[in-house]
Order: sequence, then structure tokens, then C-alpha cells
Amino acid sequence: MALRTGDHSQAATNGLKEKVLTLDTMNPCVQKVEYAVRGPIVLRALELEQELRQGVKKPFTEVIRANIGDAQAMGQTPITFLRQVLALCVHPDLLNSPDFPDDAKRRAERILQACGGHSLGAYSISSGTQLIREDVARYIERRDGGIPADPNNIFLSTGASDAIVTLLKLLVAGEGRTRTGVLIPIPQYPLYSAALAELNAVQVDYYLDEERAWALDVAELRRALLQARDHCRPRALCIINPGNPTGQVQTRECIEAVIRFAFEEGLFLLADEVYQDNVYAEGSQFYSFKKVLTEMGPPYTARQELASFHSVSKGYMGECGFRGGYVEVVNMDAAVQQQMQKLRSVRLCPPTPGQVLLDVAVSPPAPSDPSFAQFQAERRAVLAELAAKAKLTEQVFNEAPGIRCNPVQGAMYSFPRVQLPPRAVQRAQELGLAPDMFFCLRLLEETGICVVPGSGFGQREGTYHFRMTILPPMEKLRPLLETLSQFHAKFTREYS
Amino acid sequence: MALRTGDHSQAATNGLKEKVLTLDTMNPCVQKVEYAVRGPIVLRALELEQELRQGVKKPFTEVIRANIGDAQAMGQTPITFLRQVLALCVHPDLLNSPDFPDDAKRRAERILQACGGHSLGAYSISSGTQLIREDVARYIERRDGGIPADPNNIFLSTGASDAIVTLLKLLVAGEGRTRTGVLIPIPQYPLYSAALAELNAVQVDYYLDEERAWALDVAELRRALLQARDHCRPRALCIINPGNPTGQVQTRECIEAVIRFAFEEGLFLLADEVYQDNVYAEGSQFYSFKKVLTEMGPPYTARQELASFHSVSKGYMGECGFRGGYVEVVNMDAAVQQQMQKLRSVRLCPPTPGQVLLDVAVSPPAPSDPSFAQFQAERRAVLAELAAKAKLTEQVFNEAPGIRCNPVQGAMYSFPRVQLPPRAVQRAQELGLAPDMFFCLRLLEETGICVVPGSGFGQREGTYHFRMTILPPMEKLRPLLETLSQFHAKFTREYS
Ligand SMILES: Cc1ncc(COP(=O)(O)O)c(C=O)c1O
Ligand SMILES: Cc1ncc(COP(=O)(O)O)c(C=O)c1O
Repeated sequence: MALRTGDHSQAATNGLKEKVLTLDTMNPCVQKVEYAVRGPIVLRALELEQELRQGVKKPFTEVIRANIGDAQAMGQTPITFLRQVLALCVHPDLLNSPDFPDDAKRRAERILQACGGHSLGAYSISSGTQLIREDVARYIERRDGGIPADPNNIFLSTGASDAIVTLLKLLVAGEGRTRTGVLIPIPQYPLYSAALAELNAVQVDYYLDEERAWALDVAELRRALLQARDHCRPRALCIINPGNPTGQVQTRECIEAVIRFAFEEGLFLLADEVYQDNVYAEGSQFYSFKKVLTEMGPPYTARQELASFHSVSKGYMGECGFRGGYVEVVNMDAAVQQQMQKLRSVRLCPPTPGQVLLDVAVSPPAPSDPSFAQFQAERRAVLAELAAKAKLTEQVFNEAPGIRCNPVQGAMYSFPRVQLPPRAVQRAQELGLAPDMFFCLRLLEETGICVVPGSGFGQREGTYHFRMTILPPMEKLRPLLETLSQFHAKFTREYS
Repeated sequence: MALRTGDHSQAATNGLKEKVLTLDTMNPCVQKVEYAVRGPIVLRALELEQELRQGVKKPFTEVIRANIGDAQAMGQTPITFLRQVLALCVHPDLLNSPDFPDDAKRRAERILQACGGHSLGAYSISSGTQLIREDVARYIERRDGGIPADPNNIFLSTGASDAIVTLLKLLVAGEGRTRTGVLIPIPQYPLYSAALAELNAVQVDYYLDEERAWALDVAELRRALLQARDHCRPRALCIINPGNPTGQVQTRECIEAVIRFAFEEGLFLLADEVYQDNVYAEGSQFYSFKKVLTEMGPPYTARQELASFHSVSKGYMGECGFRGGYVEVVNMDAAVQQQMQKLRSVRLCPPTPGQVLLDVAVSPPAPSDPSFAQFQAERRAVLAELAAKAKLTEQVFNEAPGIRCNPVQGAMYSFPRVQLPPRAVQRAQELGLAPDMFFCLRLLEETGICVVPGSGFGQREGTYHFRMTILPPMEKLRPLLETLSQFHAKFTREYS
């Protein structure tokens, strides 16, 4: 021991010391993490913006960030009532101001009453303010046609991301062939692959069916599961509905089939339902996994374990920066739920402003409230514009040769398939890039349009896609879609 | 495989299915996590509050939560300027209101300019808004007498907790005897033990010296390190200064000795400096590890790896609920720092309101600003009252036989040692409780005072303590301290 200590001191004196924390010594799981939504293409976009600001000449005048589902960054205005209530909570002197409607004031007072020291500055209890969890429970009951929800099963979170990672964390166990496997859709939202890598769990891919508008097929689930059982212990199944990046909205029948499958195979269901308010296509409707599960009756109702996630980042709210969200757990083992509670208490509490926005979003003004009309009008306007942009996106892309886009039934993204000429694929390989990354980088450099290559979400071998949000304002979206289509045509010619 | 599937279905039909996620199958590391600050004693406090509300008769009329460092929950009023700026950012219509001072408006406009879509509702970049990191860097430079700070080394976080866990996560590697060991003080803030348990790293205890006002002694660090090297690979050293739960403020000489030790032994330094504004004792002063490290010159300055944490939850701000904080990394390997950036991007961004409060806290009004006088007065009042309460706590406890309390030089807690009679220890053991947990539970039941047993933070075998915050308002604190002292006397008589 003394010797080892001596060695160290020696090295120190000689100034030969290596860093303690290097790529060689750091957590190897963290190194495996990838997160395309903010990956190299976004770093390049940042650089380009800086160059533009410095006056460097480019073939475009602004970078358009269609890479991330961030509505307000793209110019969507916040819903007035949400911000009024929050401003009143932040600065209660405003409760005396004539500039705020009565219902916003009542709402803020009610929330502050429920906070420690009547202030947002106090930590809330770890699962989130009791009152707000009660409001969330009532929201879920309304949404699901009266099926009861228990506030004790609701945990508020720092965005949905935080809750998703917590559930995955609980599920991770075992080593080698008994390591926890988690089924995730391909294409997926890369939080899933990133969290599984970090937790050293096994990612089990099931493919959505592009030919059937990205439908989820139980036969494919079964294939993935059986194959995975050879090398890990699959214990959970993640579903994203409405889908990110794929924009599909699952049918009730599909959800029933998935629940039956999960039940038979002993899989914990993780239903990522953060886009539940974002359904645009005619004939499409959002069904929550909890509702379908409950209506299927025994043995599913009282047995199938489920966690459902929601967020203030999406929907008509688009309040990403506030990091509000929740998870409802259904049929979770009581002792495990206590462990979850304990685990969450270590981080103290979710941010209170996000809790406030969530509260308002789940209990919007009633018809008799002074803010009702404005709230409804603003909400409808946001959702109607998103629906129009979803339609436009599908339409313009499908007019372009070599681009094929499934209907954007919901969520905030299109995930069109692009044909890339073999010479482009070859060129990309020479550069050590995924072919669609090569395409997206070239697109960015020549048009300023920032989209994320399909390889960041996963796709069938040999197919190429990109994800583009439908969030740019209408007047920008059409030219954007056209520029993108034209760039694809030019790129195709260049490499033919 | 087919058979296994069949088995499952069979079990399903018979309704014999076990849950997927149970104590037996869940993440074993999560089960090992403990977090006393919100443990069983706090759950009991919640129950008692509910009983009081339901009219159940108790020997007290209210539960006093002296268990958690949550100033506003204990009635501290927020600093007006912080909340004004935040309200303006949340609801920019207020920029037209005559009720807000000009400097608050300018500040809010400046922050909004730096936000995506000029709104707090957009995700910020993952490391936090550039402008705010620049302001943090300037704050650090002022604090440290001009030593440069680089915004690129600053990562904003969801409270300091989030940043601390991130750093620990990066450091975790190895298995068996090569597992990462992390030295933490005993007594400690239990986030550290909880995070290490969750990450499956080895907790290496070094004891603070109660006889010397909880000073940190390098000989004890060395003892702990050498002993740990037999079974793990110690790679990091955590220091909490000013201390939680112990309230000591380290001397400059002590910090120098710690840095020399860390350097010689190849340890990454984690300096938890969230109480840097909370120094009360005459003769005590806060020195940041970064300042001391830099002033020590080579080889330390350009080599010793360090992360320093700060938070808006503590200081004079007490804005716990907003979850704002940051870490500055010093001499971190560039590739590791990129990995850290990537890891943090998966969670998208720290909550924007916490970022705003942090910005105001690190760049308060200047003497020429209209809000300067009020801001300074409010800040001083908070810190002066805390100082008075620190003094009072030490004084009253030390008048009580069987209680010994070190000076509360800084932070927000006293951690007095209590003598417990052997028969009380025995009784506790019969009940399966730590003796100080038994004491604290009885205290809670009979007086409504909620404090945390020393066993939740760690203490030398055979010694007993509790942690009590100094946060209750002055008019409550004195009777509280007296009630507690009297209860201890009574408890001692009862078991003698
Ligand atoms: C499918 C899905 N789940 C979860 C999230 C996480 O969102 P947040 O953490 O902002 O709530 C996102 C964000 O884009 C998402 O698309
Ligand atoms: C020593 C210490 N570090 C870190 C924290 C975390 O605080 P937060 O996450 O609220 O910034 C606390 C909270 O009490 C603390 O006492």
C-alpha cells in the first residue's frame, strides 16, 4: 500500500500524472450512449448559425431547426392562461393586479395554498404536490371515460424523460443472459436507446411496418421477443403512441393485441403517450393503454402492469423548457412502488413551475370561467395549424420523386423515406458516415435546413429516412418542404 | 421457446401470473438506496399532520419540519427581485406593466433574447442557456478574485443534485476489486450514499472530527483511502463545504492539504459548495476549492481535476422548488467533457425558470440599479437572521445536559450529539430501530418536532446525533430548541 502511494507521489512530482478520468477509465456505459436529436448535425447547425452571425456568406440566410420537437422555439406562442397562472404563482404580488382574470387568480391561490410555505420556492413532496396529482387523476378519469385514477399512482416528473428513465431503472437487473431486455420500436425516440445503454440493459428492437403506415404488428413483436430470449431476459415493452418519429396513431384493435401479447409473455408495458393531444388524421383517435386495458376486463384489468407517460412539452402547450410531466403506474407491485417513491425522493422534487403548468393543462378553464373562450380559441388554433401542417407535409413530400411519406396521423414529425443513389451511399461510406447522415449534412450545408437522419432513430437495413418536425410556421413550412424536395432531386442527379 | 411462450399463456389463463416487477426481480441497486432526509420519520410527520387536520388530539398543535433545508417552507420570503425577473420572463405582457422596476425588465428582456423563440417554453441547449453560463462564469471570477472561468466548463443543472449524480455517473467503472470507490465525509448529505448505491459504486467513508468542530483531517483521509484500496479503486473525493449536516466551514489550510492529498493520490475532487453564501461564524470565510487550487500554482493548477457544485436552493435565495444549479468542471479531460455533454443532452435541458433564478442570483443588481437597495436589504436580512439562529442554536443546545453542539459556522443545520441512556439504546434495539431513530420518533410523537436521526447521515459507532435545521422563524426557534432540550432530559430520566 505504502508503495503504491509512493508511486503516485513520485509521478506527481515528476509532473507525469495522467488524468484520473479519461475515456479509458470513465463509465463505459455512458460512452455507448447516443442521442441523435442533439447529435453532430445539431452541433454543425449551431456553428453555421454562428458563421451567419459573423457575416460568412452562405447559400441561405437562416438555419431552420426542424430537428427537435420544440414548438415555441419555432415561434408558437404560449397559451396565455398557462402563463398567467404561473406568473401569479411566481410573483404573488400580482394577485392584486387588475390585469389578470379572476379565474387565473383563483387558480394560482389554490396552487399556492398547496405549496410548502405557500411558495413555489419550497421543495414539493417527491411525487409532486398532492393537489396537482389529484387534478391529474381527474384529468385521466375524464380522458378515459370515467375509469378511476388514483393520485397515489401518479408521480410528477422533470419532463416525461425523467419518469421514463426512472421506470427503466427499476426494471434493470441480471447479468449476461439474464440481463433485462426491453423491447422498443424501430424507429424509436432515442431517449430509449440512450437510457438502455446507460443502464446496461439490452435493447430489443421490434420494427414498425412502414408499408402499413408504421403500424405495430404483433407477429413482429413475437419475432423480436423470441429471438431476444436467447441472449437476455425481456421484461418490458415500450410503445410510443402517437409515434415519434413515425407519426402513426395506433388503432384500438392494435392496442388490444399488444396488451394481450404483453400479458401472455409477461412484459411490463411502458406507454409513451406524450402526444396524446396531437392527433390530426381523420379516423384516427387516441386511446390510452390504460383505458383499453381496463375495458378488456379480467384477467388483464387487475393484472397487467403498465406505466403511462405524459408531458407539458408537447400537445398544444409546447412548454418544453419548464420540464413538467408525469407517469401513472397501473397494477404496479406495492413494494416496488414504495421503492420508486424512495428512489425519486433522492432527487428531492420535480420543478414546481412545471408542476403548475401541468396542473393548468390537466384542468383547463371550465365553460363558466372568464378565461374559457380565449383558452379554447388558442388551444384550437394551435392544434388546427399543426393538423394543416401535418397534411401539407405528407402532400408535398409525396409529390417528390424518390421521397415517400406516410400520413402524419399524429405527434409532430414526418419520417419520410428517401431513395439515395448507390454512388451517394458509397461516397458516404468512404467518409465514414451513415448514408442518410451524409444526405442530411449536405442538406444543412446547402439549404440551412436541419433535420435528423433516420439512422439516429433506427430503420430497416438499406432504407434511408430523415425526421423533420412539422413545427415551422406555415409560411415557412411550404417553401421548406419544397426546398428539401428540390435538394433531394439535385442530390440524386449529382450522384447518378 | 414455443414451450416457454405456451407456459406463460397457460399461467395467464389460470390467473396465476406473478407480477413482472417485484422486489425479487427489480433493480437490486435501487433497493439498497436510502435517503433519510425524506425517510420514515418524514412519512410519520405527514401522517401526524393529517391527524391534526382531522382533529385528533395531540400534545402539540403543529408539526415543525426541521428535517429539510427548505427555507421557504419554513416561512422565509423570496427575494423580490428574483421573482420579479422570473415573472416577467414567464409572462412577457408584464414588460408593459408600471409595477415592475426598469432593471427587472431589462434583465428579463436580456434573458428572453437568449432563449429559443424568446420564450422560457423552448428547450435550452443541454448545458444551459449560453448567456446564463457566461453570467455564471463572471460570478465565479468575481468570487475567486479574478481567476478566469470559462462558460464552456459550466453546466447548468436541475438543482445541484442532478449535477452531482452526473459527475458520479461518469466516474463509475470496474467490477469487483476494480470497482470505483468514492470517498465521502461521515456524516454526509445522503444524496452521496444514495447515488453511490444506485450506481453500484463503493462508498468509502472518512470521518470528520467532531472534537475539532467537524474538521477534515488528512490523516483520516489517508486511513480511509489505504483501507479502501484493498477492495476497490478509489477515484474521487467528495467534500461538502460548508458542511451538511455538520455546519463546519473549512479553513484555507485544510483545503490546501486536501488538494495536495487528492493530487498525490490521483483522486478527482468533487466540491459541494452549495452553501457558499451561508457562512456565519466570525473568523470563518468561504474559500472555493477552485480558488485555492489555482493559487497553489503548479503542478496543481493545471492538473488537479475538480468539479464544484452550486445551487439556487440554498444561500439567501432558498429557491428549492425551482431546481436550479450548476457545476463548474476544472481540468476535466476534453473527451470526457464531451461525453458529459452528450449524456446531459439525453435529458434535453435543465428547467428554464431555475436557469433564470440562477442568472439573477449570480448577477444581482448593481449599485446604480433601481433595485439595488431593496435587493441588498432583503439579502442581508435573510443572512443576518440565519447567523443569529445559528448562534442561538449552538447556545441553547450547549446549555442542555447531555447535548453537545459544535458551532454552526455555516450551512443551515446543527448536528448535536446526544447522550442516550443504555436502557433507551436497548429498547430501540428491541424495536429494531437505530437508537437515535427511536429518540427522534419519540420526539416527533410527543412534541411535533421533526428532525432526522444521525444514523441517516452516518456517525461514529456508539455516538448518537440528530440534524435539525436552523430555518424555523426566530420566534419559533427558541421555544423549539428549549422543548427539544427538555424532551431530551425527560427521555433520559425515563430510561435511567
Ligand atoms: C416520444 C417522446 N417521449 C418523451 C419525450 C420527452 O419529452 P419531455 O422530457 O420534454 O417531456 C419526447 C420528447 O421529444 C418524445 O418525443
Ligand atoms: C450538501 C448538499 N448538496 C446538494 C444538495 C442538493 O440541493 P439541490 O438539488 O436542491 O440543489 C443539498 C440539499 O440539501 C445539500 O445539502
